[in-house]
Amino acid sequence: MPKVSKRGLSMPSSPIRKLFPFADKARKEGKKIYQLNIGQPDIATPKEAFDAVKNTDLEVLAYSPSEGYEWYRDKIAGYYKGLGLEISSREIIVTAGASEALNFVMNSCFDPEDEIIVPEPFYANYNGFSKAGNIRVKPITASIESGFALPPMEDFEKEISSSTKGILICNPSNPTGYLYSKEELEVLKNIVLKHDLFLLVDEVYREFVYDGKSHTSVLSLEGLENHAIVFDSVSKRYSACGARIGMIISKNNEVMQAALKFAQARLSPPTMGQIMGAAMTTVSPSYIHEAIEEYDKRRKICIERLSAMEGVICPHPGGAFYLFVKLPVDSTENFCKWMLESFDHEGETVLMAPGAGFYASEGLGEQEARIAYVLNEKDLHRAMDCLEAGLKAYNNR
Amino acid sequence: MPKVSKRGLSMPSSPIRKLFPFADKARKEGKKIYQLNIGQPDIATPKEAFDAVKNTDLEVLAYSPSEGYEWYRDKIAGYYKGLGLEISSREIIVTAGASEALNFVMNSCFDPEDEIIVPEPFYANYNGFSKAGNIRVKPITASIESGFALPPMEDFEKEISSSTKGILICNPSNPTGYLYSKEELEVLKNIVLKHDLFLLVDEVYREFVYDGKSHTSVLSLEGLENHAIVFDSVSKRYSACGARIGMIISKNNEVMQAALKFAQARLSPPTMGQIMGAAMTTVSPSYIHEAIEEYDKRRKICIERLSAMEGVICPHPGGAFYLFVKLPVDSTENFCKWMLESFDHEGETVLMAPGAGFYASEGLGEQEARIAYVLNEKDLHRAMDCLEAGLKAYNNR
Repeated sequence: MPKVSKRGLSMPSSPIRKLFPFADKARKEGKKIYQLNIGQPDIATPKEAFDAVKNTDLEVLAYSPSEGYEWYRDKIAGYYKGLGLEISSREIIVTAGASEALNFVMNSCFDPEDEIIVPEPFYANYNGFSKAGNIRVKPITASIESGFALPPMEDFEKEISSSTKGILICNPSNPTGYLYSKEELEVLKNIVLKHDLFLLVDEVYREFVYDGKSHTSVLSLEGLENHAIVFDSVSKRYSACGARIGMIISKNNEVMQAALKFAQARLSPPTMGQIMGAAMTTVSPSYIHEAIEEYDKRRKICIERLSAMEGVICPHPGGAFYLFVKLPVDSTENFCKWMLESFDHEGETVLMAPGAGFYASEGLGEQEARIAYVLNEKDLHRAMDCLEAGLKAYNNR
Repeated sequence: MPKVSKRGLSMPSSPIRKLFPFADKARKEGKKIYQLNIGQPDIATPKEAFDAVKNTDLEVLAYSPSEGYEWYRDKIAGYYKGLGLEISSREIIVTAGASEALNFVMNSCFDPEDEIIVPEPFYANYNGFSKAGNIRVKPITASIESGFALPPMEDFEKEISSSTKGILICNPSNPTGYLYSKEELEVLKNIVLKHDLFLLVDEVYREFVYDGKSHTSVLSLEGLENHAIVFDSVSKRYSACGARIGMIISKNNEVMQAALKFAQARLSPPTMGQIMGAAMTTVSPSYIHEAIEEYDKRRKICIERLSAMEGVICPHPGGAFYLFVKLPVDSTENFCKWMLESFDHEGETVLMAPGAGFYASEGLGEQEARIAYVLNEKDLHRAMDCLEAGLKAYNNR
């Protein structure tokens, strides 16, 4: 029997998935599980998006251009204009989700053995795409005590070698919710200009910012035109994860030309998703405002409830819809498993994402966990009740 | 300015695309172009597929499972049962088109520097995915004189080294239309069993067979359960290239587990495409029968017209919707360009795919071209008129 490849064997499993079998078992036993483990929004996708596919008069569902339909890229450019950013349709490639965007850019910018610096904890799939492309992730640890702020410039410079080709951040961050300030982006700008690196920024959560703060896109920084590459997506903004519509935005023409060749090899992004995506650009701004208000309410509930739990450390992040917390347990992986296997609070329990899987450095994040506040207020309160009772019971067992 | 990667620079451009700028210019000059260059069917997508998305009552367009919805994989299993093949839903991973399926399988089965043997001419994007994964394509040349039949076993064995991990064919073939016989598949079976190789078979055109012939799926060959990996897609079968729904089918559990990890890294295949794909499995068999009849009429027109042109060699392939022909010109690339730039027949011309791009061996296919018969009968006749007139004028210029 022929053997699968070493790279196939070494592809990491998502930290979220390890617990799925335990959750399945708990469900079979009749437990209700509040899922705080995945970034799947519960907010309704805009009706305009569904109407657009319902009203289509297409007869042949044909390939789109590999870079995406021009009428859609024009609308994306219009969306960026609304953010005060001048992006032409030539500076946009539509992809099957931000995941594919990341994959194309990783392959376009990095050769095997090249290094990319990523502040940890970071979105676990960054590991997957790096591994698949044989790119080395060099983590720089951000601390929960600083609320996961950008580590100091020295920490970056310590890791930069002749193999370093870029830095990758997520702003606001999945998994920490941390919103990078303009000043922090300026620090990164100085580093990438000094060392001639790419600066890859995942901005799929850019609308979700709170406490009157505002998001600075790396695309707004002067002098970074040839360095900045942005990943974007309709998934979170419009609760449309299943559309599989993401995009690469960059003014670096060489990168866009290379990425286009990867895009051409896979032929085209989904046509229905592009029809829906174009309709989403016509959605009233109130849709996003209401979503932000809703998430902000949930964020406040979680922060208030978590901060009141003994021994829990909960930073107050400014964006996205995640909290990355420290729990008073030996291991959040063990605790999360136990919550599914051996605990219930009035027949209910919670599922969270254990923190270690978001770190590349061995041994870090063992006591941390990511909480996605993608449930309504009532359910969130119930979930917090479960967590609170669970923490007490776990440590008294 | 940071430099793009070597792998980004070395990604091949599709042979179809080189001529796009010339076609754009010709169109601007008012020429009508009959496009015989791409495998984009003109036949209407089943109404059931559009109705399915029109009738959806989804409120949140959510991620699907990474391997695809179980209700869709069950329907795919049912489709295979209809072909007499026992495939369980666990032996299916739904992908964003057969392209993504190919990409996952390439990475799951082959490490960098591993070799894969592919009879040439072959679908040009096989090159792209191999290049992206740093996998070496070893071509074995099939000849136009034999109608592009499978080269003899000795040719394969000459190329097999300790780095060889698999063989890849497309059956029936894009770009040649050649339909591999059961006997030829048995030859391949013997080779892969003897040398412990994977046998990757792209069967996306399996329904499109003519002259009373029938298609043998590699999945029906006993003893190949751990070797055979099939790529499938709704794109050609149901004229739904824009749905971006393909699939990996294999009984090799290790391969499926590795491929699933690549699938998990990109989260999920398109939800709307899966809804449409499920509806396609309910389409009356008459849909496919009528499509086959239509393509067969076109095939006969092309073969008859091409065979009547002086100096043209046109094999009579048994499947797909392509012909791979030899033209009496110095170079089909030059000829195709000239047809766009310097020729018209009553204001019209044709666009074909030059043959060299379908070969990995340098210098082969210079006088060959791929013709996709994806136009209606009337247009096909007009296109053949143009080609006939063009060949005369080119050689008398």
